[in-house]
Amino acid sequence: MKIIIAPDSFKESLSALEVAKAIEIGFKKIFPNAEYICIPMADGGEGTVQSLIDATQGKIIDIEVTAPLGNKVNAFIGLSGDEKTAIIEMSAASGLHLVPIEQRNPLKTTSFGTGELIKSALDLGVQKIILGIGGSATNDAGVGMLQALGAKFLDYQQQTIGFGGETLIKIDSIDISNLDPRLKQVSIEVACDVSNPLCGSLGASAIFGPQKGATPEMVKMLDNGLQHFANQVEQQLGFAIAKISGAGAAGGMGAGLFILPNVKLKSGIKLITDILALPKYIEDADLVITGEGCMDSQTIKGKTPIGVAQTAKQFNKPVIAIVGSLRSDYEVVYDYGIDAVFPIITEINSIEKTLKSAQSNLISTAQNIARLYQLSLIQ
Amino acid sequence: MKIIIAPDSFKESLSALEVAKAIEIGFKKIFPNAEYICIPMADGGEGTVQSLIDATQGKIIDIEVTAPLGNKVNAFIGLSGDEKTAIIEMSAASGLHLVPIEQRNPLKTTSFGTGELIKSALDLGVQKIILGIGGSATNDAGVGMLQALGAKFLDYQQQTIGFGGETLIKIDSIDISNLDPRLKQVSIEVACDVSNPLCGSLGASAIFGPQKGATPEMVKMLDNGLQHFANQVEQQLGFAIAKISGAGAAGGMGAGLFILPNVKLKSGIKLITDILALPKYIEDADLVITGEGCMDSQTIKGKTPIGVAQTAKQFNKPVIAIVGSLRSDYEVVYDYGIDAVFPIITEINSIEKTLKSAQSNLISTAQNIARLYQLSLIQ
Repeated sequence: MKIIIAPDSFKESLSALEVAKAIEIGFKKIFPNAEYICIPMADGGEGTVQSLIDATQGKIIDIEVTAPLGNKVNAFIGLSGDEKTAIIEMSAASGLHLVPIEQRNPLKTTSFGTGELIKSALDLGVQKIILGIGGSATNDAGVGMLQALGAKFLDYQQQTIGFGGETLIKIDSIDISNLDPRLKQVSIEVACDVSNPLCGSLGASAIFGPQKGATPEMVKMLDNGLQHFANQVEQQLGFAIAKISGAGAAGGMGAGLFILPNVKLKSGIKLITDILALPKYIEDADLVITGEGCMDSQTIKGKTPIGVAQTAKQFNKPVIAIVGSLRSDYEVVYDYGIDAVFPIITEINSIEKTLKSAQSNLISTAQNIARLYQLSLIQ
Repeated sequence: MKIIIAPDSFKESLSALEVAKAIEIGFKKIFPNAEYICIPMADGGEGTVQSLIDATQGKIIDIEVTAPLGNKVNAFIGLSGDEKTAIIEMSAASGLHLVPIEQRNPLKTTSFGTGELIKSALDLGVQKIILGIGGSATNDAGVGMLQALGAKFLDYQQQTIGFGGETLIKIDSIDISNLDPRLKQVSIEVACDVSNPLCGSLGASAIFGPQKGATPEMVKMLDNGLQHFANQVEQQLGFAIAKISGAGAAGGMGAGLFILPNVKLKSGIKLITDILALPKYIEDADLVITGEGCMDSQTIKGKTPIGVAQTAKQFNKPVIAIVGSLRSDYEVVYDYGIDAVFPIITEINSIEKTLKSAQSNLISTAQNIARLYQLSLIQ
């Protein structure tokens, strides 16, 4: 029997690798001779770097970069085991969690640090960069990121426009002749699960601005800035980026990235599934186990368990999900390839105690699933 | 496919029948054409009356009786659907929960109310009385119960000794000539899961006295009273009751009951299993599902799931337990016939909310177990 264990992390308690290993321990108590393949997964969001380096025996590299408000912050990138792929989470350098709540203001925040992370990846000589863009604090169309990589955005006095969403409206000329030349040698795959355009009522500022601290007036200013940016890019560089699906992701980062060569936006889970060659492993498996910290109706929107399940169903394999918690609206996951779901909580306890017992509860739940599975195999 | 669903109640949230019905609903979503037999179970403890009347389409009869401290209390007995069996929980009339904490004192408390419940059962003309004796507030060797049924316990002045453990030491003469004559026409089966003798360091007073409010001095007085009672019974009636296994149950009720005709002490779960003819149903079943509110290492000590599992294993049937919560020391249940266990909690919430969602969580868990069971049947 060959069992693929491909869960996401359980946020705040266990990495995806730790989740997979706990499930393996539980299953092995009942099926000690089965073949187990643990594939720590992610969907392009938080934990993607950890999961991909765990899956490829890679490593984390710490890098000091520019935080959203211009101060310094310790960020990181991942390097795959074969050293050919760098994995970056935008939020490590430009994340909303890096800005104190009372200072959250997308007029001021810059994605410069994310550009520095990309530059560090180029320094490593990788062939491919995986970039997750969730959780950003910015609404600067990725201008900060482009600045860090050598692009110049100047006002009518030929001065740099500086940082933040409020400066975009000042763009008078764009010079990308000094973009890091190594960008031409790498492909950048961006995990992007939204299809918002850059501007307007479904654009970056209107939809994602408020959660980053923008008031209705700020949303208008930000949206005008993005529109001006798109107009300038189209006029000066010839790229029509405003209406690309996903251009509005991460405060317009989705649009700004298209100024770089060899950039592709992809569904996060699809990107990870491809990178980790999940279909190859599942093809001849008998059972696929996935999981995530909290399963609910949002899970079907590109979260790891559904990505794993959809892959498994291409080969008609059974899929069991083990989850940290389960919201009452979860049943829609059955329509997306999940055959059965088991939460791991055993007792009502404080959140702290529950998080601490996540590993032992996972082992216990996996064991009982294996016991039930074995039971019906015997019948 | 024939599925037997035989759980205990989930204390504070669902009766055994409600638990069984919820499991049936969940399973039916996947196996709509299976045959389901719901058998609400109990182990002789709290919930036994409700489960047995639910299992036999019987009814509850409310009766006002004497509470442990002599005041009146609304108690109840159960009458089976065929009206041949009465089911009594001693705690309904003589339970510790009926005495305010600050007044708990087994020198004072009487089992008289339990005798009144037995009398009410005789009034109904039943052939059999099932008596659960858990949770009592008393340490009076069942003298109160015997008094309610016509026995006289007199002091050396030929005055009644009155109520409470402290009065036993005064017993000078015992007269059972006026015991209710109908007792000879019924059999009384007592659910008793302890084997303590009446007196001494393993006796009723030493082991169970403190939880009923006895100080070390009171334990000594109570133990002396029980010893005196046993001596008097042996001398005057010729019954050697002190060393019978279980004589020390329920404050010596186990001993006092032997003064009545046709009394048998039995393991609670065995008694219920026999009454409900569980083996007959399980014999040709495909799957047995049981459950209880909280499963832990104590479950193996005569609790419902183990009773059901032991019966199922006589016929080599698979047994799944669904439980409200699961303590980390539960795994010993595997050695007693439980094949797999699933707790139903889906999220960390307040106890109130968790109890409220017990039914929907049960349905969900049962559905997922059925899904997994089906999955491997297909393989």
